[in-house]
Amino acid sequence: MEKHLLGMKDLEAEDIISILDHAVTFRKVLDRDVKKLPTLRGLTIANLFFEPSTRTRISFELAEKRLSADTVNFSASMSSLKKGESLRDTVENIEAMKVDMLVMRHGSVYAPNYIAKKTNAVVINGGDGANEHPTQALLDFYTMRKRFNSFDGLKVTLVGDCLHSRVIRSNVVGLKKLGADVTLCAPSTLLPYGVETWGIRVTCDIEEALNGANIVNIMRLQLERQTAGYLPSLREYKMIWGIDRRKIELMDENRLVMHPGPMNRGIEITQDVADSEDAVILDQVTNGVAVRMAVLYLLAPRRGEELKKSNE
Amino acid sequence: MEKHLLGMKDLEAEDIISILDHAVTFRKVLDRDVKKLPTLRGLTIANLFFEPSTRTRISFELAEKRLSADTVNFSASMSSLKKGESLRDTVENIEAMKVDMLVMRHGSVYAPNYIAKKTNAVVINGGDGANEHPTQALLDFYTMRKRFNSFDGLKVTLVGDCLHSRVIRSNVVGLKKLGADVTLCAPSTLLPYGVETWGIRVTCDIEEALNGANIVNIMRLQLERQTAGYLPSLREYKMIWGIDRRKIELMDENRLVMHPGPMNRGIEITQDVADSEDAVILDQVTNGVAVRMAVLYLLAPRRGEELKKSNE
Amino acid sequence: MEKHLLGMKDLEAEDIISILDHAVTFRKVLDRDVKKLPTLRGLTIANLFFEPSTRTRISFELAEKRLSADTVNFSASMSSLKKGESLRDTVENIEAMKVDMLVMRHGSVYAPNYIAKKTNAVVINGGDGANEHPTQALLDFYTMRKRFNSFDGLKVTLVGDCLHSRVIRSNVVGLKKLGADVTLCAPSTLLPYGVETWGIRVTCDIEEALNGANIVNIMRLQLERQTAGYLPSLREYKMIWGIDRRKIELMDENRLVMHPGPMNRGIEITQDVADSEDAVILDQVTNGVAVRMAVLYLLAPRRGEELKKSNE
Repeated sequence: MEKHLLGMKDLEAEDIISILDHAVTFRKVLDRDVKKLPTLRGLTIANLFFEPSTRTRISFELAEKRLSADTVNFSASMSSLKKGESLRDTVENIEAMKVDMLVMRHGSVYAPNYIAKKTNAVVINGGDGANEHPTQALLDFYTMRKRFNSFDGLKVTLVGDCLHSRVIRSNVVGLKKLGADVTLCAPSTLLPYGVETWGIRVTCDIEEALNGANIVNIMRLQLERQTAGYLPSLREYKMIWGIDRRKIELMDENRLVMHPGPMNRGIEITQDVADSEDAVILDQVTNGVAVRMAVLYLLAPRRGEELKKSNE
Repeated sequence: MEKHLLGMKDLEAEDIISILDHAVTFRKVLDRDVKKLPTLRGLTIANLFFEPSTRTRISFELAEKRLSADTVNFSASMSSLKKGESLRDTVENIEAMKVDMLVMRHGSVYAPNYIAKKTNAVVINGGDGANEHPTQALLDFYTMRKRFNSFDGLKVTLVGDCLHSRVIRSNVVGLKKLGADVTLCAPSTLLPYGVETWGIRVTCDIEEALNGANIVNIMRLQLERQTAGYLPSLREYKMIWGIDRRKIELMDENRLVMHPGPMNRGIEITQDVADSEDAVILDQVTNGVAVRMAVLYLLAPRRGEELKKSNE
Repeated sequence: MEKHLLGMKDLEAEDIISILDHAVTFRKVLDRDVKKLPTLRGLTIANLFFEPSTRTRISFELAEKRLSADTVNFSASMSSLKKGESLRDTVENIEAMKVDMLVMRHGSVYAPNYIAKKTNAVVINGGDGANEHPTQALLDFYTMRKRFNSFDGLKVTLVGDCLHSRVIRSNVVGLKKLGADVTLCAPSTLLPYGVETWGIRVTCDIEEALNGANIVNIMRLQLERQTAGYLPSLREYKMIWGIDRRKIELMDENRLVMHPGPMNRGIEITQDVADSEDAVILDQVTNGVAVRMAVLYLLAPRRGEELKKSNE
């Protein structure tokens, strides 16, 4: 495994499986009364969120605290960026305070890759522009594997704004490596240039896309897309692309409905589907903490090494 | 005692006394050099403040940290609510990260009650709309009892905006249960519909209200009330309702001046009264941390149970 | 040493040296794998930032956490100040929650001094208006001493907006006490009234100021100064006052380039100078954490006393 976690692009299938295997252990810890381990005691982790976030930031912060790391939070609103400082200087400054790991979300594609080259700290990508969101993909995979045990031939349909979604991109890259059978379904205005080279099935026909699928992973519609001219109307999007009970019935009987959140109930997913037994949306959230604990544990510098040894 | 603390409505007099008794112990801890106890180690508490707050948020956070809980903070400004997520989904997501307790402030009446029905976590109301603010009432009661030992026949006068104040509502409900003799005094424009059914004395005559009182609890004037047409002018409010030295002299010699803060010095309370020996406004703040430690301790799930046993 | 750290004005030369000596120990801790000490366990520290800050706030927060103190953060944006509360009441309220130490940044000159008179907590100035920023000066001195061992006759040139910079003021006061040879260089529009009484060399000639200097400490140009009429244009400021390779060559061969950050690369300092071997700008940041740990350790109430004894 690489030093940093920048994207699914950099992981081999066996790396992904190793992270998921470790996450199984941490997932059990989350069901205990005392959810705290001394694993990362003495390490400092900075959460640098240059874009707003609720669940990802809190999920990482809980993962860090449950491993006994010290954490500091940074959000762009209070940042020296407003005073004209470059991203590189901001991050190098925080690293100079002897921070061991950086969790970073940024609106620009490859911002974490750029920083990873400039820093000695371990960098974990918490979402970069429309590029990747690797820990979201890992928690999606954890949730899929828990139900289906294997990815081999697993029929996964990704629905939604493929042009702007980093979650879709990380899902596609990872699922291909794991041997899943991936279908992408989106309005033609929301398909990116070159999607035909991604090596997956692409269709604008939602019924064809869902037919016999084991998993549908539904992306949030970013409502500002409508006014930007990508969509005719919310009502039409909801009718054609919104996942309702009738569309779910097209899937295999052995099926899961997933959504990375936050959901627009009544738009890309109906109320009853979101609350149905097929939906594992809150499981995804719980698994996310375990997956992030596994990533932090596996990438932790030095002490991690020792601990990994003593744990083997 | 109930599982959650949603309002004084749900507490029996003996529950209130039990919380105050436990708070006495924690109050002593606050006077020690080391103010930290291992009581809630391994528990995770999320502070969800959908409305801005300084003192209540910091008071809870300190109470949690002094009991060794892990804490995460959430404020509405950085929230997925902006992305169109429902309150229920936001809170369920945070709970899915295996958070044990939620402290919640929200602008809508009964928002914590709604969430309490949807979640396995323990919910503590940190203020909901114009409804209740139970931990503020509890710290008020702690401060009253410390001086007067008993609530029986204690003459408590609440002054201010009864229409919008959750502090007044929680005070009224709790004080009645405890047997105090409660008087409410406000401009007639700031009396709510149905106040005559509350079972307390209500008057618009401030001198009558203060005459012989042991305690005056002065509510902050929310300055936007003036422009909303509830008040003729700040100057008139100050003259009639502002508590000054002369009005204090109408009270019993054995008396306390209280205010939940933040104070508008020179409006609802004069500078000299705020800094007088009768005022216990900063004591209230200190007692607030102890009362919140007691509430967290008594409501903590599982581990709390064990600890309560081992402490008995 | 005084109870509080309000400014370099209140420190004797021997106090400064004592802080730097203690910081040497803490600086070594920062190079260890486990950077955490139990020194301040059980103490509570509030970081009250009434002005935005990235590096100073995070630097203090890391220093506190590495000494095992409990911390709470307060930023003006979520403050009761918006509700009309006075600064004194806000701070007294936080102190009433039994906070042991307050780190405070405020836009008004002497705000920390005012608060120090009203509170039992230890107050550390994190920057007050255009007055002082003592921990920044201390970390500058730490960085200077590390290279030159002594301040005696050390030629230090401070460049930039002397009218508004609290960093320059704290540098001047401290460096004079330590026996350095200080030169101040700024556009005449940015020299304060009475600078001729400060007892240092003042010049508007940047080449004269740098000639033979050991250290140049470059202040950030606050870009709003331009539109406020203090500067003819950014381009002219950059040409005359911007520190480039050619100007650096005027200095002594044994030299350091310092900057408190955040840098405006390409304005007050060129890209190549900022990244040159002469520059110790990131060392300053690392040393800042160690210096703040030393200040917190030396000023910590009660427990600090005991610990200091047991450490001697």
